[in-house]
Amino acid sequence: MTIFAEIIAGRAPASRVYEDDDVLAFMDIRPFTPGHLLVIPKVPASSLAELDPAIGGRLFQVGQLLAAALRESEVGCDGVNFFLADGVTAGQEVFHVHLHVIPRKAGDGFGLRGRPTSPRRPDLDYLASSIKRALPGDSSRA
Amino acid sequence: MTIFAEIIAGRAPASRVYEDDDVLAFMDIRPFTPGHLLVIPKVPASSLAELDPAIGGRLFQVGQLLAAALRESEVGCDGVNFFLADGVTAGQEVFHVHLHVIPRKAGDGFGLRGRPTSPRRPDLDYLASSIKRALPGDSSRA
Repeated sequence: MTIFAEIIAGRAPASRVYEDDDVLAFMDIRPFTPGHLLVIPKVPASSLAELDPAIGGRLFQVGQLLAAALRESEVGCDGVNFFLADGVTAGQEVFHVHLHVIPRKAGDGFGLRGRPTSPRRPDLDYLASSIKRALPGDSSRA
Repeated sequence: MTIFAEIIAGRAPASRVYEDDDVLAFMDIRPFTPGHLLVIPKVPASSLAELDPAIGGRLFQVGQLLAAALRESEVGCDGVNFFLADGVTAGQEVFHVHLHVIPRKAGDGFGLRGRPTSPRRPDLDYLASSIKRALPGDSSRA
C-alpha cells in the first residue's frame, strides 16, 4: 500500500484542494515551487498501463481546473507545468499514478534538464513507423 | 497561425504517429530523447484555459496509448514522462497546447531541474485553502 492510498483512506495527512468520486488533489509535501499539487486517481493504479483511460482523462481535466485556480489564488503564478513519471527510469517514486501540477514564476529555478537534438527527417520517420506499428490494432493511424 | 496548425492542415511536414478526429501525435523535431512525441488537439487552443476539457482528457488518453506503444516499439524505453508547459514562464514556445510524451532509458540525461523544499504543514494548508477558494463554485471541494 502506497502513501497515496493512505491519504485517500484518510489515514495519512494531506492538504487537500480538490476531491470528486474519481480524483483527489493535494499539496506535494516536497514542492518544486510553492503551490505544487499532485492529482491522483482514487482507484489505485501503479502505472499508466494499469490506469483506466477514463480516469486518466479526468486527471488532465482536474489539472486544467487547478491550473486556472492556481493563477487566481495567492500562489499568484503566471505559468503552470504538468509532469508525470511512469516507471522507475522516468523518476517515478510512488507507485500510484500522480500528475504533478507545478505553478511557475519567473526565476523560480524549476525546469527541464537535458539537451534536445536535431535528428534527420528519415530517422524521425523510421521511429514514427515503429511506434505506429506498436499501437493496438484498433487505434486510429496517422 | 502556429507551426502546429500548419502540420494539422498538412502544409508543414511531420512524422505522424497517431491521428483521430480530435487529436494528432507526431515526432518532436527537437527531441530530448529518441522517440519524443507531441500530442496536440486539432482545434487550436493557445492555453489550457482555452482547451475544451473533453479534448484535454483525450490528450492524456492518447498519451497513455503512446506510452505503451513506445515500450513495444524499437524505441525500447523502460519509462515515460509526460510534460506540458502552459504559459511563457512555464517554458511554452508554441502557442497551441501540446503534451510531450518522452521515452526514458537509464542514463539518458533527461530530467527535472530544481530543488524541492519541505514546507511546514500550516504553510501547505494555507496555500491549499487559497487554491480551493479560487476553484469555480461548482467544483467538488476536498
